[in-house]
Amino acid sequence: MLPLRLDPESPLPLADQIVGGVRQHIEDRLLRPGMRLPPIRGLADEHHISRFTVVEAYDRLVALGYLQSRRGSGFYVATRPTASLREHRPGEVERAFDNAGVLYQSLEESGDRLKVGVGWLPPEWLDEEGLRRNIRLLARRADTRVAGYGTAQGYAPLREQISLRLAELGIAAPASQITLTHGATQALDIVARTFLCAGDCVLVDDPGYWNLFANLRLYGMQLVGVPRTASGPDPEALAELLQTHRPKAFFTHSVLHNPTSGSLAPANAFRVLQLAEQHDFLIVEDDTYGDLHPGAATRLAQLDLLRRTIYIGSFSKTLSGCLRVGFFAAAPALMARLTDVKIVSCVSTSEFSERLVYQMLTEGPYRKFVDRVQGRLAMVTEQTLRLLERCGMRIDTEPKGGMFVWARTPGISDATPLARRAADAGIMLAPGSIFRPQTQPSPWIRFNVAYATDPRLERFLGEALGR
Amino acid sequence: MLPLRLDPESPLPLADQIVGGVRQHIEDRLLRPGMRLPPIRGLADEHHISRFTVVEAYDRLVALGYLQSRRGSGFYVATRPTASLREHRPGEVERAFDNAGVLYQSLEESGDRLKVGVGWLPPEWLDEEGLRRNIRLLARRADTRVAGYGTAQGYAPLREQISLRLAELGIAAPASQITLTHGATQALDIVARTFLCAGDCVLVDDPGYWNLFANLRLYGMQLVGVPRTASGPDPEALAELLQTHRPKAFFTHSVLHNPTSGSLAPANAFRVLQLAEQHDFLIVEDDTYGDLHPGAATRLAQLDLLRRTIYIGSFSKTLSGCLRVGFFAAAPALMARLTDVKIVSCVSTSEFSERLVYQMLTEGPYRKFVDRVQGRLAMVTEQTLRLLERCGMRIDTEPKGGMFVWARTPGISDATPLARRAADAGIMLAPGSIFRPQTQPSPWIRFNVAYATDPRLERFLGEALGR
Repeated sequence: MLPLRLDPESPLPLADQIVGGVRQHIEDRLLRPGMRLPPIRGLADEHHISRFTVVEAYDRLVALGYLQSRRGSGFYVATRPTASLREHRPGEVERAFDNAGVLYQSLEESGDRLKVGVGWLPPEWLDEEGLRRNIRLLARRADTRVAGYGTAQGYAPLREQISLRLAELGIAAPASQITLTHGATQALDIVARTFLCAGDCVLVDDPGYWNLFANLRLYGMQLVGVPRTASGPDPEALAELLQTHRPKAFFTHSVLHNPTSGSLAPANAFRVLQLAEQHDFLIVEDDTYGDLHPGAATRLAQLDLLRRTIYIGSFSKTLSGCLRVGFFAAAPALMARLTDVKIVSCVSTSEFSERLVYQMLTEGPYRKFVDRVQGRLAMVTEQTLRLLERCGMRIDTEPKGGMFVWARTPGISDATPLARRAADAGIMLAPGSIFRPQTQPSPWIRFNVAYATDPRLERFLGEALGR
Repeated sequence: MLPLRLDPESPLPLADQIVGGVRQHIEDRLLRPGMRLPPIRGLADEHHISRFTVVEAYDRLVALGYLQSRRGSGFYVATRPTASLREHRPGEVERAFDNAGVLYQSLEESGDRLKVGVGWLPPEWLDEEGLRRNIRLLARRADTRVAGYGTAQGYAPLREQISLRLAELGIAAPASQITLTHGATQALDIVARTFLCAGDCVLVDDPGYWNLFANLRLYGMQLVGVPRTASGPDPEALAELLQTHRPKAFFTHSVLHNPTSGSLAPANAFRVLQLAEQHDFLIVEDDTYGDLHPGAATRLAQLDLLRRTIYIGSFSKTLSGCLRVGFFAAAPALMARLTDVKIVSCVSTSEFSERLVYQMLTEGPYRKFVDRVQGRLAMVTEQTLRLLERCGMRIDTEPKGGMFVWARTPGISDATPLARRAADAGIMLAPGSIFRPQTQPSPWIRFNVAYATDPRLERFLGEALGR
């Protein structure tokens, strides 16, 4: 008898639960090499689940090298994980996918599920008509290349345009110091692959962008969270961490930080850069949400001028997530190497998408459009704040812009069970633990204000929190 | 005085040559910690090169942690490589970029340089009109999503379409077993990241796809080349290699192999699969050029039915390199994990590009178009073979299709110097050594027949080879 705990209410598929449970038992040596697993039929009947689910789980465990199948006799714990398909660090990877699972749900076609947990605006908030118009325009133009490969660094006029926009933010970077990527996430991936290696200690925001955490963990890096205050990374906590850790890099989010929507104060920026200098680590500044910030904001690259900072941006939040256009800007000495890693990883990016973004930035009323989105966000943020207060949620700092409200559920230590109940009610929530470097428990929840005003959310929270 | 050998004729930029030379001296301990480098002006004058080139090289060496700059005093060998920006395995990475450099040149905007060395067809050979027409059509359709993110596995109707096409090749893979990627190269990258780790021994074709080699080396994998015969990997040589190596995977190219254009014979396929079974390694079958093969061909996935084979395809060679649409097909048990790694690496792929490929496959005359390309390729292949013979090049096996002729320069051991001379004459060649796992010398050259019939090539080869 295999002491497996399966939870049919969990968002994790039953097969995944079996795989995870069996692996845990093998790793804990409760199941030892050569021991026979319960027969498929027996396990399925015991847990009232489909035999197919058990077959799937066992097959996966065989593929992962944990089990061996002996024809006509059943499944046995492998004497040693078979080599070819085993993973690097089962524990690490497994945890990484707790996070990836949430993004998977975000991307899923979901009928009428209310996705309060996603990290982007509803497509209907974006300028779909402008995109369509410019796509038609590009397709008619004789000079649009639609069949050939793009260039190594990406479409030069767009890089020029980004250079101008960075200059307005006070970041001097000629087009030669900008390389276009398949979204900001690929830019983060390229930087990690170029400068870091397995075992390296890497600082990240706590809470922070969990897809990045999953990615860095897949590379085998050790994540250390820097507590986030309302005005950016906590410099005292950072200084203390640097007493015991020797990080190679700090990945941080300066403006409209995901998930708290807080922005970096100049004094924090100065202190972080000072510590980076003293302790000689690279800074990777992700500015994915920056365009949604009303008015001026402080960026590390502004002070450091790309000496020790690599700056990353994206057009996925304001133009289109489906175009996959992001970029990094870095010191001249680093560009050749970073661009080589881009080529080696994916050859090139889509020049058609890059031309489209260029059109949208130069021919369309991009600034006016972003202003309108900011106004609309301010309105629903206000509504969301009131709604959450009515449900008894606590907000420490009201956001100054962006699409997120970061709110705390009082009287609990972890919001994950609440997110599970929400999933059953057709509402996707993003509980705080997924934003933590080691998915530690957290009473916080990130609400996307563009979805939060749907009455279903208030109804659910009201009932769940007993208001 | 620093004994640096700089070659102004080399395709490698002078700054790269300085960086490489100084690093070599440091690694060979000819330059030791604390030693002063020659002043910028002195080194520039000595080699008759620009001071800016030396500055750039020194700056990069500082960034890489090899040198330290002392204000007003000059550059010194660092006492220890500074931590944050050092690389994993300088030697490995450096070699990787010998290869990446060639792809960089392929992607570069090059005026009237003759790119006989590229791995794709000239854009004007492709159906640019069809692409433009379908782009306009998609932009007009109300159901085309242009602003939102795509789904995790990619646009479902295209995956269904690929499933049908794979069924015609005898590979049964429902759409759930297919995930779309940012080109075939990203598919290879995802597979490597999911199942392999640093230090793993990996088999590759020798000669083979060098961008893959550079990628695997960046991950720190050990590449072992399996000699390629006219009918696929050499099974005897493979068996012998398996006496001493325990590979985790074999990355191979079955149909219209790059660079030889040879295809896998059924007997070789069977033997390779048998050895994979016996020695328990994964097979990653790259079928990027398969659609250009006239008539039937053998694929490993056909025999193995995706049990131990992951099958990778692309539309970059027949539809458009700029759309970046490729895919992998794998066993059901592996799909969740592979797709998670895709999400973690880049969130999602471009649904607009995927819809466009779907349109081109279903509404356009794709098959007729590919037939026409095959006919045209057969014609210029014939011309190229005669031309190369006139110049004294040797061809062991005439290709049965595809865009490459693999030809040997008689009487030399390495074609790289010839490729350098060609570069000076405005002709980009792909010398054999870049297709070898350790860039060993090779007298072979890969000619792209779509470019080779340009009279400039025959003129150059005639002169260079003294005919």
